[in-house]
Amino acid sequence: MHIDPNRFLDDLHHLRTFGAAGVGKGVSRPAYSAPDIAARAWLTQRMADAGLRVEMDAMGNLFGLAKGPSILLGSHSDSQPEGGWLDGALGVIAGLEVARAAQAAGGPAVSVVSFQDEEGRFGVTTGSAVWSGQVAQARADGFTDHEGVTLGAARDALGDLVTGPVDPAQFTGFIEMHIEQGPVMDGTDDRVGVVTDIVGIRDMKITFEGQQNHAGTTPMHLRRDAFAALTAFSAALEPRFANVVTPATVWTTGHVALHPNASSIVPGRAAFSMQWRDGDADRLGRMERIIRDLAEEVAQARGLTVTFGEMLGLEPVAMDAALRRSLEGAAEAQAPGAWRRMPSGALHDATNVARLMPVAMLFTPSIGGISHAFEEDTDEADLVLGLRVLADAVARIGRG
Amino acid sequence: MHIDPNRFLDDLHHLRTFGAAGVGKGVSRPAYSAPDIAARAWLTQRMADAGLRVEMDAMGNLFGLAKGPSILLGSHSDSQPEGGWLDGALGVIAGLEVARAAQAAGGPAVSVVSFQDEEGRFGVTTGSAVWSGQVAQARADGFTDHEGVTLGAARDALGDLVTGPVDPAQFTGFIEMHIEQGPVMDGTDDRVGVVTDIVGIRDMKITFEGQQNHAGTTPMHLRRDAFAALTAFSAALEPRFANVVTPATVWTTGHVALHPNASSIVPGRAAFSMQWRDGDADRLGRMERIIRDLAEEVAQARGLTVTFGEMLGLEPVAMDAALRRSLEGAAEAQAPGAWRRMPSGALHDATNVARLMPVAMLFTPSIGGISHAFEEDTDEADLVLGLRVLADAVARIGRG
Repeated sequence: MHIDPNRFLDDLHHLRTFGAAGVGKGVSRPAYSAPDIAARAWLTQRMADAGLRVEMDAMGNLFGLAKGPSILLGSHSDSQPEGGWLDGALGVIAGLEVARAAQAAGGPAVSVVSFQDEEGRFGVTTGSAVWSGQVAQARADGFTDHEGVTLGAARDALGDLVTGPVDPAQFTGFIEMHIEQGPVMDGTDDRVGVVTDIVGIRDMKITFEGQQNHAGTTPMHLRRDAFAALTAFSAALEPRFANVVTPATVWTTGHVALHPNASSIVPGRAAFSMQWRDGDADRLGRMERIIRDLAEEVAQARGLTVTFGEMLGLEPVAMDAALRRSLEGAAEAQAPGAWRRMPSGALHDATNVARLMPVAMLFTPSIGGISHAFEEDTDEADLVLGLRVLADAVARIGRG
Repeated sequence: MHIDPNRFLDDLHHLRTFGAAGVGKGVSRPAYSAPDIAARAWLTQRMADAGLRVEMDAMGNLFGLAKGPSILLGSHSDSQPEGGWLDGALGVIAGLEVARAAQAAGGPAVSVVSFQDEEGRFGVTTGSAVWSGQVAQARADGFTDHEGVTLGAARDALGDLVTGPVDPAQFTGFIEMHIEQGPVMDGTDDRVGVVTDIVGIRDMKITFEGQQNHAGTTPMHLRRDAFAALTAFSAALEPRFANVVTPATVWTTGHVALHPNASSIVPGRAAFSMQWRDGDADRLGRMERIIRDLAEEVAQARGLTVTFGEMLGLEPVAMDAALRRSLEGAAEAQAPGAWRRMPSGALHDATNVARLMPVAMLFTPSIGGISHAFEEDTDEADLVLGLRVLADAVARIGRG
């Protein structure tokens, strides 16, 4: 099996002409947009040219299928409204190149996929969520984007590209190559990341309710200031977490809404998001207990009430041990001493696919840790190195 | 001079029929609205009935004038869009009752005023700001409300109520009676507050700028989280202020805007309001130094930048010593042991009038500290007690 780095890079650059933003290498190719459909039509042709049987399901998930049981490679070719050229596109074209090389070599059996709407115009990893059976197509068809368009109406644009359902049972496993989308490898000597697990997420809205007051006439000791409570809570959280978290654990308050949010009024209400991620479900649970206890404590000490919204929970997904060993062996062979094991802090299609089959993931570095922005980029030498690791891992699976 | 508490209360209740909200005693009587104009027309008649010469300037400030040099009493009769029945109305009707009693008694010379737009449909204490010469009428006419209506267009509704300018030189001083609008006297034995000063205000927008990042892929130690910086700043402010502030000093962050304000994104920017008030201009300056230093310190420690917006500054206004003595003597005579000296944390028309003549203020308690809301109220016994203190003080000035 001989991969062709130039053909791989040419295809990767060609894919970014669909929805080119005109700003650096940036693209704007949201799910079901004209550039997304055009890109899928072009991919259909490239897959067929490689000798793969092309199928697209009703969602728009596009498969290039090898004969018989096969390993599935790929990711997604839709982008954020202001996205980078790599993101999911890298995994799709890397998968295409390996499948193409394997077809030419007469084996192993490698299929490729571009999932639809990973970026969540209509939800979260919508295409792979439907394919893996977590969301019924009929229910997904009712999802709407920010403009009120339903997914059901949007997917009409797929037209006769759709062929029918694709049976997951034909795949022996799934490997998703992806840019890291974070700053961990950038600036280190490591050029390849073998993912250990996709972290689990907890996301909860918390609301402190105090007393709205005049900011001039209310003495400090009579205030029940909801923003002051949020401040006390947030500042106390890190020391409370100290004995529970690891360097890979993250927590974020990214959304804050004060009421009435006016400079001369003591805030009566502060609603905010509390999100935390870790690869260990037990740790996520321990963090939840600390968050709830601390919020209650702060509220009680200051004469406020606190309410907790519904909690969004996604469980951590461990990568398959055998697939991971193949990736680690390939990484050490292709980039001796220049790779690392690492968790994925971001969600990926692999999270959904893990319900159906063994999955693993491979990361290449992101320059400056930047993603979901026109500036997203990776050194082409790192892209090719990642491709070599992927191909080597697939060969090892074939041998295994 | 014999005041008539029943006539005073009747007029006060009649005034709340203009713009009655239909919720408790609440009123909706913004400046230049039909209810505001109708209320001013009614006040014109009540002032004339009392034997006062009535004048209204171009802004709509309404004066009932005694002959010769006189002491001016009053406040404002416009309200917040969702306002209480007392707020400025109390000071206008109390002034009217004392002026009426003085006219009937043949002295002392007492005039009364209802300023226009104290509640700031078009700015801040707009009517008294124009009358005191701080804002030219032509400039004020260009001010717009939230609907884009100019003050110049709105005051057309005054029609032939307008007579012409009123010379401030005829007044020997100004006393404004007002509800406290805060919780300090409520729940204590004190029924009367003699204001020592109207506090000064500093109000500044501060912005922390860090790095917007993915909340899953960015490890904690590589983040430059703008909300975390705001949290650290706010939590550290109180201990830093400890040796500088008094129990009467207040500070507030009432407005916060995160960017992009999404639960899965580490905030790259946090802009917030920092407002502080105190009766001592030196202390306001020392607090400013602490705020700027702490914000710089937090930004530097966390790798962010901080920028400070333009600072709104209103200087503290001390009440006139002689007028204050008259109020204190009257308070002790009418409410022995049941009154206090206190600062005003809220702005009032008296702040502007202080540029022209000696001013003083008198507070009655606010039930629950509530104001600028339909629920605003004060025990009628306290209203009458306040009226007696005001009348007594005016008599003392006459004797002084």
